Amino acid sequence: MDAKLTVDEVRLTPILVSDPPLLNTQGVHQPYTPRLVVEVVTRGGVSGLGETYGDGVYLDVARPLAEALPGRSVTDVNALFEPAPRPDAGAGTGTGADTGADTGVDASGLRGVRTPEKLRLSVVSAFETACLDALGRTLGLPVHALLGGKVRDEVEYSAYLFYKWAGTDAWGAALDPAGIVAQARRFDREYGFRSFKLKGGVFAPDQEIAAVRALAREFPGRPLRLDPNGAWSVETSLAVARELGDVLEYLEDPAIGIAAMAEIAARTDVPLATNMCVTTFEEIPEAFAEHAVRIVLCDHHYWGGLHRTRELAALCRTYGVGLSMHSNTHLGISLAAMTQVAATLPGLRHACDTHYPWQTEDVVTPRPVFREGRLGVSDAPGLGVELDREALAVLHRRWLEDDGRYRDRDDAAAIRTTHPNWTPNHW
Amino acid sequence: MDAKLTVDEVRLTPILVSDPPLLNTQGVHQPYTPRLVVEVVTRGGVSGLGETYGDGVYLDVARPLAEALPGRSVTDVNALFEPAPRPDAGAGTGTGADTGADTGVDASGLRGVRTPEKLRLSVVSAFETACLDALGRTLGLPVHALLGGKVRDEVEYSAYLFYKWAGTDAWGAALDPAGIVAQARRFDREYGFRSFKLKGGVFAPDQEIAAVRALAREFPGRPLRLDPNGAWSVETSLAVARELGDVLEYLEDPAIGIAAMAEIAARTDVPLATNMCVTTFEEIPEAFAEHAVRIVLCDHHYWGGLHRTRELAALCRTYGVGLSMHSNTHLGISLAAMTQVAATLPGLRHACDTHYPWQTEDVVTPRPVFREGRLGVSDAPGLGVELDREALAVLHRRWLEDDGRYRDRDDAAAIRTTHPNWTPNHW
Repeated sequence: MDAKLTVDEVRLTPILVSDPPLLNTQGVHQPYTPRLVVEVVTRGGVSGLGETYGDGVYLDVARPLAEALPGRSVTDVNALFEPAPRPDAGAGTGTGADTGADTGVDASGLRGVRTPEKLRLSVVSAFETACLDALGRTLGLPVHALLGGKVRDEVEYSAYLFYKWAGTDAWGAALDPAGIVAQARRFDREYGFRSFKLKGGVFAPDQEIAAVRALAREFPGRPLRLDPNGAWSVETSLAVARELGDVLEYLEDPAIGIAAMAEIAARTDVPLATNMCVTTFEEIPEAFAEHAVRIVLCDHHYWGGLHRTRELAALCRTYGVGLSMHSNTHLGISLAAMTQVAATLPGLRHACDTHYPWQTEDVVTPRPVFREGRLGVSDAPGLGVELDREALAVLHRRWLEDDGRYRDRDDAAAIRTTHPNWTPNHW
Repeated sequence: MDAKLTVDEVRLTPILVSDPPLLNTQGVHQPYTPRLVVEVVTRGGVSGLGETYGDGVYLDVARPLAEALPGRSVTDVNALFEPAPRPDAGAGTGTGADTGADTGVDASGLRGVRTPEKLRLSVVSAFETACLDALGRTLGLPVHALLGGKVRDEVEYSAYLFYKWAGTDAWGAALDPAGIVAQARRFDREYGFRSFKLKGGVFAPDQEIAAVRALAREFPGRPLRLDPNGAWSVETSLAVARELGDVLEYLEDPAIGIAAMAEIAARTDVPLATNMCVTTFEEIPEAFAEHAVRIVLCDHHYWGGLHRTRELAALCRTYGVGLSMHSNTHLGISLAAMTQVAATLPGLRHACDTHYPWQTEDVVTPRPVFREGRLGVSDAPGLGVELDREALAVLHRRWLEDDGRYRDRDDAAAIRTTHPNWTPNHW
């Protein structure tokens, strides 16, 4: 294989990224969230970028993978998925006190089932993306061309509305329907998003129903979504579906688990979406057989990267299930990766989620700009983003100097600094 | 996009390739079989190769596709799958007198369901392969590297045993167990194949059982397969499974259709394989839900090419279904494509079929050489084969001079030149 495509070095840079106090069913976002930046440097002197979750368990998986890569070709991404030593993590169990161990939800409570293989794939995804970026840069081809080529020139994203505390950010508080509508207006004005998703599971369902109703009045006919991250019972979910059925594009993860989702799906016409009960290939056969979801929201990190995202898309197409993309706190590297792969997927009929507008910090330049709710698909080599090494150094220094409070995301700990007796709600 | 990757011209060359008188449930192979060679030539002067079925209906689809490609990039293979004008063919119906119109089997009776979309994909596959070959040649990368990289250095193939008439070829007749064993010995000696597949459905089941028994005695412990192309009833299939259960690696398409296959599968432990009842993505949900097959034999032409083959592999992995590859009369371009994509698929546990040793003519040089039943995975740019333009011209001239007898494969017509009253058998 061409020597200039051979991996010379892999650099892992854990960072802490500032995050506003966004509320969800597991608590509130901490002031900083950990991410891991992966750089794959070739003997040709080209550096490719990848990004993934940065909690300690991810770093533990990333280090041996980084050591194993030098000497291999950046074209060799399938080999990343070959069996490898697995971390000693319990399959299907949570690790935190309030993390829903009984339902197999992980420490953040928001990422679905936790297995050693999923953890490994979440790390592999960053290595795969970095290899594709390095390969594209070397060949002068965009990543989408390495995935068979784009079938659209722009990817549509959705506004991601959160209940939030005031914090120190520029958005202010949003704790009632008026606050959510004000937030939505700003997303509409500054980003042009057509679709709106409200992160729910924070207040009682009637308050969140009121917020969605207020959005429907303010933005008639626009696609609306509500995502309580599994905080509801089957009956509550059905009650919300009845109340909002006329305005919801979809209801996302109203309840936990395939069985509950399937029961809800059988009793309502409101489409159900998920990024919690179908986050691995292993979960697909049961979920699809039970018709538990109509739309899978792919987080390319969970699924193992961009090639795997295309495979998931093929599965969804084959079974008549819709596909869109999940997003949480991440930077411009992952946003570029999402955009590149989304551009290659036929039949993407739902605007992708993007958490990105909440991120004021990034390690890439220039900062991507949404126009009319869309990102243009870069045809520049690789992912089409450039690493800002100064910014990376600042965020890494923050990680180095952290006293252990923020290196593992813990939304429950964050909310308890204000509400010591907080526990997750379930309606 | 890089101008040197832009398609300048597409050349379609229909050819007739000589074929020995191999027997199957639909008759006998004609002396010549039609194939289509696709050359995609870039503005950079690089020519990429693809190959597919060459009957008239395929040519009719290929011509407008060839006209539409110039000006596009060879990286742009996903766009080949975007909706296009479809040929005016009846979905799910055969066209010939004895072609099983009631079961949706096509004119050759061996290629499974016939739909306009499958026909289109079979043509697209040759364009996709040619684009990938041209891209790889331009970049100096093997096709497997464009598919994420090989995970093995060799691909194992199986001997493909046929009942046959003597003909003018060097193999002689094989019309009984002794003839089949003699044929297998030669495959073992000259090619080193470990696995043996017998094309059945030609003689009464007890004669074919006797042939497989004879193979088991001659080659104890070696994987054996029997493929009657759907010529049996459910009860006959189960009787054969009982007789041969101790020696069969799998039974291939014993009966026609997912329902019959599922019934057989439910009543025997012998694994069932198919390249007839699952040949499109549309057929997968029912077949997998009914547990109709344990192994899908992918013909990359049917499925739409190499990216789609990888997607099929992901589907099979997800549902715990095995994957291997189908082969019928094709040349070295398709064999190279099969080998390149097979090299990238994890968990390939069954030797791929190869019809190639029956082909004495080819349009590529050098002729691929099997060693110990395996082909090495080429790391040369593209598919790693070179077009022999003189050979191509000879085979194309044969097509031009054909009086219409062989431009559409018709095994039934061929057998009726000797046995005018022949009709397909069903046991």
